[in-house]
Amino acid sequence: MNSEEIKMLLEGVKAGTLEIDLAAKKLEELPYKDLGFAKIDNHRELRVGYPEIIYCAGKTVEQVKTIVAYMNTKDSNILGTRATKGMYLAIKEECPNAEYNEVARTITVKKKEIKLTESYIAVVTAGTSDLPVAEEAAITAEILGNKVERITDVGVAGIHRLFSKLEVIRGAKVVIAVAGMEGALSSVVGGLIDKPLIAVPTSVGYGANFGGLSALLTMLNSCASGTSVVNIDNGFGAGYLASMINKL
Amino acid sequence: MNSEEIKMLLEGVKAGTLEIDLAAKKLEELPYKDLGFAKIDNHRELRVGYPEIIYCAGKTVEQVKTIVAYMNTKDSNILGTRATKGMYLAIKEECPNAEYNEVARTITVKKKEIKLTESYIAVVTAGTSDLPVAEEAAITAEILGNKVERITDVGVAGIHRLFSKLEVIRGAKVVIAVAGMEGALSSVVGGLIDKPLIAVPTSVGYGANFGGLSALLTMLNSCASGTSVVNIDNGFGAGYLASMINKL
Amino acid sequence: MNSEEIKMLLEGVKAGTLEIDLAAKKLEELPYKDLGFAKIDNHRELRVGYPEIIYCAGKTVEQVKTIVAYMNTKDSNILGTRATKGMYLAIKEECPNAEYNEVARTITVKKKEIKLTESYIAVVTAGTSDLPVAEEAAITAEILGNKVERITDVGVAGIHRLFSKLEVIRGAKVVIAVAGMEGALSSVVGGLIDKPLIAVPTSVGYGANFGGLSALLTMLNSCASGTSVVNIDNGFGAGYLASMINKL
Amino acid sequence: MNSEEIKMLLEGVKAGTLEIDLAAKKLEELPYKDLGFAKIDNHRELRVGYPEIIYCAGKTVEQVKTIVAYMNTKDSNILGTRATKGMYLAIKEECPNAEYNEVARTITVKKKEIKLTESYIAVVTAGTSDLPVAEEAAITAEILGNKVERITDVGVAGIHRLFSKLEVIRGAKVVIAVAGMEGALSSVVGGLIDKPLIAVPTSVGYGANFGGLSALLTMLNSCASGTSVVNIDNGFGAGYLASMINKL
Amino acid sequence: MNSEEIKMLLEGVKAGTLEIDLAAKKLEELPYKDLGFAKIDNHRELRVGYPEIIYCAGKTVEQVKTIVAYMNTKDSNILGTRATKGMYLAIKEECPNAEYNEVARTITVKKKEIKLTESYIAVVTAGTSDLPVAEEAAITAEILGNKVERITDVGVAGIHRLFSKLEVIRGAKVVIAVAGMEGALSSVVGGLIDKPLIAVPTSVGYGANFGGLSALLTMLNSCASGTSVVNIDNGFGAGYLASMINKL
Amino acid sequence: MNSEEIKMLLEGVKAGTLEIDLAAKKLEELPYKDLGFAKIDNHRELRVGYPEIIYCAGKTVEQVKTIVAYMNTKDSNILGTRATKGMYLAIKEECPNAEYNEVARTITVKKKEIKLTESYIAVVTAGTSDLPVAEEAAITAEILGNKVERITDVGVAGIHRLFSKLEVIRGAKVVIAVAGMEGALSSVVGGLIDKPLIAVPTSVGYGANFGGLSALLTMLNSCASGTSVVNIDNGFGAGYLASMINKL
Amino acid sequence: MNSEEIKMLLEGVKAGTLEIDLAAKKLEELPYKDLGFAKIDNHRELRVGYPEIIYCAGKTVEQVKTIVAYMNTKDSNILGTRATKGMYLAIKEECPNAEYNEVARTITVKKKEIKLTESYIAVVTAGTSDLPVAEEAAITAEILGNKVERITDVGVAGIHRLFSKLEVIRGAKVVIAVAGMEGALSSVVGGLIDKPLIAVPTSVGYGANFGGLSALLTMLNSCASGTSVVNIDNGFGAGYLASMINKL
Amino acid sequence: MNSEEIKMLLEGVKAGTLEIDLAAKKLEELPYKDLGFAKIDNHRELRVGYPEIIYCAGKTVEQVKTIVAYMNTKDSNILGTRATKGMYLAIKEECPNAEYNEVARTITVKKKEIKLTESYIAVVTAGTSDLPVAEEAAITAEILGNKVERITDVGVAGIHRLFSKLEVIRGAKVVIAVAGMEGALSSVVGGLIDKPLIAVPTSVGYGANFGGLSALLTMLNSCASGTSVVNIDNGFGAGYLASMINKL
Repeated sequence: MNSEEIKMLLEGVKAGTLEIDLAAKKLEELPYKDLGFAKIDNHRELRVGYPEIIYCAGKTVEQVKTIVAYMNTKDSNILGTRATKGMYLAIKEECPNAEYNEVARTITVKKKEIKLTESYIAVVTAGTSDLPVAEEAAITAEILGNKVERITDVGVAGIHRLFSKLEVIRGAKVVIAVAGMEGALSSVVGGLIDKPLIAVPTSVGYGANFGGLSALLTMLNSCASGTSVVNIDNGFGAGYLASMINKL
Repeated sequence: MNSEEIKMLLEGVKAGTLEIDLAAKKLEELPYKDLGFAKIDNHRELRVGYPEIIYCAGKTVEQVKTIVAYMNTKDSNILGTRATKGMYLAIKEECPNAEYNEVARTITVKKKEIKLTESYIAVVTAGTSDLPVAEEAAITAEILGNKVERITDVGVAGIHRLFSKLEVIRGAKVVIAVAGMEGALSSVVGGLIDKPLIAVPTSVGYGANFGGLSALLTMLNSCASGTSVVNIDNGFGAGYLASMINKL
Repeated sequence: MNSEEIKMLLEGVKAGTLEIDLAAKKLEELPYKDLGFAKIDNHRELRVGYPEIIYCAGKTVEQVKTIVAYMNTKDSNILGTRATKGMYLAIKEECPNAEYNEVARTITVKKKEIKLTESYIAVVTAGTSDLPVAEEAAITAEILGNKVERITDVGVAGIHRLFSKLEVIRGAKVVIAVAGMEGALSSVVGGLIDKPLIAVPTSVGYGANFGGLSALLTMLNSCASGTSVVNIDNGFGAGYLASMINKL
Repeated sequence: MNSEEIKMLLEGVKAGTLEIDLAAKKLEELPYKDLGFAKIDNHRELRVGYPEIIYCAGKTVEQVKTIVAYMNTKDSNILGTRATKGMYLAIKEECPNAEYNEVARTITVKKKEIKLTESYIAVVTAGTSDLPVAEEAAITAEILGNKVERITDVGVAGIHRLFSKLEVIRGAKVVIAVAGMEGALSSVVGGLIDKPLIAVPTSVGYGANFGGLSALLTMLNSCASGTSVVNIDNGFGAGYLASMINKL
Repeated sequence: MNSEEIKMLLEGVKAGTLEIDLAAKKLEELPYKDLGFAKIDNHRELRVGYPEIIYCAGKTVEQVKTIVAYMNTKDSNILGTRATKGMYLAIKEECPNAEYNEVARTITVKKKEIKLTESYIAVVTAGTSDLPVAEEAAITAEILGNKVERITDVGVAGIHRLFSKLEVIRGAKVVIAVAGMEGALSSVVGGLIDKPLIAVPTSVGYGANFGGLSALLTMLNSCASGTSVVNIDNGFGAGYLASMINKL
Repeated sequence: MNSEEIKMLLEGVKAGTLEIDLAAKKLEELPYKDLGFAKIDNHRELRVGYPEIIYCAGKTVEQVKTIVAYMNTKDSNILGTRATKGMYLAIKEECPNAEYNEVARTITVKKKEIKLTESYIAVVTAGTSDLPVAEEAAITAEILGNKVERITDVGVAGIHRLFSKLEVIRGAKVVIAVAGMEGALSSVVGGLIDKPLIAVPTSVGYGANFGGLSALLTMLNSCASGTSVVNIDNGFGAGYLASMINKL
Repeated sequence: MNSEEIKMLLEGVKAGTLEIDLAAKKLEELPYKDLGFAKIDNHRELRVGYPEIIYCAGKTVEQVKTIVAYMNTKDSNILGTRATKGMYLAIKEECPNAEYNEVARTITVKKKEIKLTESYIAVVTAGTSDLPVAEEAAITAEILGNKVERITDVGVAGIHRLFSKLEVIRGAKVVIAVAGMEGALSSVVGGLIDKPLIAVPTSVGYGANFGGLSALLTMLNSCASGTSVVNIDNGFGAGYLASMINKL
Repeated sequence: MNSEEIKMLLEGVKAGTLEIDLAAKKLEELPYKDLGFAKIDNHRELRVGYPEIIYCAGKTVEQVKTIVAYMNTKDSNILGTRATKGMYLAIKEECPNAEYNEVARTITVKKKEIKLTESYIAVVTAGTSDLPVAEEAAITAEILGNKVERITDVGVAGIHRLFSKLEVIRGAKVVIAVAGMEGALSSVVGGLIDKPLIAVPTSVGYGANFGGLSALLTMLNSCASGTSVVNIDNGFGAGYLASMINKL
């Protein structure tokens, strides 16, 4: 509600066409409307294909089931991340079209057709053990309406595999690089492309990787310009951000 | 050089219109051309306004002066980051139009007019002590040809200051949030916007901030979707990435 | 025992009205009495409603049962923290009026009516996963005789939810802010109120949250004046301290 | 501005006694007024004796001088923390009644008489090297209008010195414990009192104290109920919070 | 493919003895051939006795079984590291000559006789708990064709045991030192020999060993010249590198 | 073997009373004898009551049983630390007089009467959860022949309990202080006694205690002179060292 | 003051031979006397040769000078640690017999002859850079009246140098091992002796030694029984503790 | 001295051709000779071209000058690492042929011609700021008699520069990779070669590189087989080890 709208409201009050009680109520809500918080939320529900998202870790099967049941009464697609198979089976009883991706640990319920972008997001993965995080990113980006190209198992220890996929990587509008161990993939990819690169460190590794710290530090210290980093194992965050950028 | 071009080259050899020695030389260079590394570099020099960038920290005044003198023989604009005033004064002798930003610690030599984008990057800063990092980001983005809006001193300890600037922040195509201490600014801004957010932790603070670690961890753990992080104090990296996204 | 009392005792000895043996015994105990340790302990048992508290983690069901059985012979209310359901069931056999809060993991045995304060403590929680810690704080404060207002799920990623509860938060005499992940809630709340704020980092999160370290550092580095921090997940400590302040 | 006031404003508009433009302007400001941010600020300036506070570290002498000169045009007392003697001398030229505490590194300009509370804050310090932090806390509390009792050099290595001051410590409404090295003072004091204890770790020490980390961890892990912690060396924060609690 | 070969190819094209399509295909592959990645891989398969290696941790029994079944169709020996007994039993069904080393947790399938080197690698181990890592190193080196001497249980707490084996250690061409706890073994051995020493920290220990960090730091800071370090518990890496050096 | 003995041996050779072969053999062994390693070992077996010690953690029941069976053929007492009840039951079959201490997790087999020292070691423990570590220290000291006084549950949160035991603590020749959480006990005890103090940090606690790091740092930074520290949870090490000192 | 003494005092009061005021005064002091704190202090001043100790770091030249001047009015020897040469020169003006040890950075003023023990403390040092810490330990032990043997430059990288001094090390009643870098010296020495070993990590080194952390962790994790550790660079603490043990 | 030699000595004693005193003296030295420590030292002095090495950091100009003066009386070449220019100038006065490498901070005095190996060591460097460490490695290897090839400024951010030098890198017998920032160079090089790779992390970088920790962790976690790591900035250690391997 901008200055113009406030004046119009007041004109209505003055002219008697707007009840004072009604006007007062509208103005009381004004702080939040003016900050636009509600708008964002409404916006989300209105836009076709924009999914409702549930972070399932730390929730009980019952809780997840209840949330999905509620969401299922609406038109939006649904995405559950960090979901167990048990959660999926419970949901499936009520949403027969729910799907489970065992690698990404995601539950998706598609209630509307998703129209994909023409430009695409490249999800580049170092090793097969990094796939769960990479798939979480890819599934997230897809349900948000993005075309995704997966380039897997191109860790820097065998860098020729990466080069054979360079054309595809360079064709993307935004690139996600997922790597554990020493996380060098993001530095190498970052030096080869001229597009925003979202680096996702994973907790894959042992010894002095300290739960993903080694990959995280590598990626933060990358000399390649155009790189930024999300939290360790945060495939969802990378997919969501990539979608934002891809749709600009 | 794609399949088509290779075949054309070979047709020329067969037809005798292309010397074998010349053809051989072209094909020897092929690995690098095919990987396109050189292309990027040429591309950089050709595009008007794309600057040459020097990371001055750890270099001597003499070294920086020599590099700038060489760059000055070309047409590109020049950006030096982490530069001291001494470096600037040495450069000024030979490049009278060199400029120094004391806050951002940048040297800029503008040799071509920079045409700014219509969309803009918002650089949001928590405290006045974070300004050097924020200005480095802003100056970098500007010399790369981006319109920049600066929103300063809007740390979360006085959150109403942030809200009074919300309209400007939301109008940006991409937002940079710069904060030291506890770095909470990025979480709050990230929750209020629907655009990519680049969070820059700074080393500003004392005690248990451990050289920026506190702000870094805060930003990596931010619950706000659409956020990614660059290295502590890396204003340049944030400005460069924001430019990439803004120009998509 | 102050100077006056010592002199009186000595007068009694001189006058022969006090046996030397008895006087000697009293004076031998004097170090502790003078330090007042015992007084505190007696004080606790005498004051109505002041609970006996058991930290159940690391104790066996049998041990907890024995302690509660002993306490049950007295008049004080009983609070057990970090208790399992198994402990509760064992206790219930002997104390039928024992109650278990599954979220807070607390056992309470109310043997006396608790008269609540008029002023209240606000317990503000970022996410639903932080509820166990928040509830531990709330239950602790309540059994200590404080009125408590719970404000849940107001993390900074959706800051408008927080603002809609601002009136209630500001009305409190002391505020507890419970948050995991990046812990930014305490900074935002601290900037909005003019009352003591007790920040409780939780171990909720993943990746670079390092078991609550990220939230802890955020809260310690908060720019908001009037904030102090307790140990990670220490809901009890926050509730106890809030009670102390609320009853001043 | 509550519902009643909004209705009154609208009645004025309807009745024609309030100009639409004026009413619109008032309502535009409403979000902030309704959130009450401005009120706090006005409140601060209105209350006699409430000081303006400057964190001087990282600012130039010139900047500090300018800020103080501006503040000097108002009626509030002024407190500068982490100030150098050079800053003080520059300020003294314009504010002859400015005072400098070399130990606390504070500049104070008293423009109004400060009426002290009857209840007092006890500032307990472990070693003489911890005095700068302790004094910062004490000076802060005093300029905020609190009576302060200083108990110095009572580290636990000679615990009898602490016990000889126990009466004074126990008489306080709130206690601040300042300690570096291993920081055990807060645990011992916390076990001896029944009042809120604010623990301030200092960076005093060497070797495995890691810039105050050892004292910080000690204090966070203290078994004594009623203890909370502020950032390493944050004497100001402790003094400010103690004042809040003391004035409840 | 060097300059000479490229010219020959072009001569063939010119002479019409080489089809343009075929020549084009060869040249398209040239970038990778020129980088020689494939050569390495071919080289590996051709050299007798060079094993295929599988890192089994984080793979399912089924996955490991499938990989081994595929490898079993070739002539190379097979080494699986970090393998469980369950994996071995599954593999044994199809490869009856598969062998399992319970200590080293390795599966080996020998399909060709391994001809050992004359020079040998000494694997020196501090305590019996470090044996799994040491055996992984030894088995790796052996299947790569190296003669290995094992010197076990010679931790520095009983340094005379180490000295009684000094002759054997000094006779080696390269030495691997495996130690957990404080990892001092590598410093002592490094000071006694004049050969390359590969230090392997293990995660064996408790308390302040922090998962092998103590041994890692010890080994990195060793004053003995000629020492380098691999990741914590990385027996395979040490065995592989030692083989490289031993075969120079 | 000193100069005198070497000369005597040579005189024997010269005189023909000592066979050259025998003399050569003796001289070959000389390096080790001269270093005295063997002497220590013999010494251990010869001294009555000096136990054989087994660190059971990370060993199988079978391994522990075998080692104890072998030791049981000798005359020395036997001490097994970090032993499970399962290990004890297996051993009991063959050594019916084996004893198991459930708190300390020690197995002891007394084959000779242990004559205790007159001076004693005081083992002071902060909380009941620290008892396993404290008991390991006490049992170790006792089987090594020391009189031990246990002072339990005297954490600094209720410091009067500590003072009521001060006489006993001060009477010891050497004191062991065992504490988790913030570990302040060692600082307080160290300030009250004039004897060597061995501080044992335990991993007891939660949140920011980081597996015992908080107590470890506290103890290392203790201002009390005469204090030294062993590894986290290393009760055995403390008991062994205390025995060494007590028997000087 | 024990029970007997209290009774005697009371008898005196009863008999009228002791004034009530005087008796009251004595009894008021009783808490501290009973705890014996004062006794320790008196004890210190009475024992010949027991020095007064000043930790000079963080004090001004003036402060140190004042403290020494005061101490100089008494009979005790004086030890200043972490002293600068400037402090020494200032002190020398008033105490002409003050001595400065440039390596140990200690000031000593010997006012009484020090009678040395017959048994000695061995101070074993790894490298020449560790000498300042080692000398601080040695000087401290000497002024406390202990005979000291220095064994320098016997780091494990050239372990034969250590063995050539083994006789001297083994002859000591207690051994101090000082080492930076990887700190392995303490493990090796600990395995060769049967006496208490005090390990002192130093901050000497670079890279991953993290200010002495590597040596600290090595020493804490040492497998050699009978070892304990003091803070990084804490030569004084080691010397003081060694003296305590040597004089038992 | 082996069994044969001992017998021969004894025969001499028996035959009277060897004095008992002389024989005794020889046998007394036997422990060290038998352990061979002395042999190494003699060996060093005897072999032509093997340099004497001084670690200059932490030594005074005077100390370094004295050591070099002493060494200059012998025939060996001399290498001083971490030397300042001031040290060089002082040395130059007495050794006019001393040379100083400003980048590597090394002083070399060549007293004998160095015969280089035919095989060479490749020293690969990521950025120009890493050159001091790389040069220290190269100079060390050269004075030890190795041919060295330097490949500089081939960081992974512009990976094509690395590939253009691949032939040279692959031709080496052993490769040293020097990199700061994120240290990804070692992973990439390690994946491209089939030779031992020594990775040297440098402290070059800022923010979350934590003094070289990021590069160190990257290199330790490298997936490329055949890689080992030395301490941060330890160019000397890498050069020394590479020489050992190159000369096998």
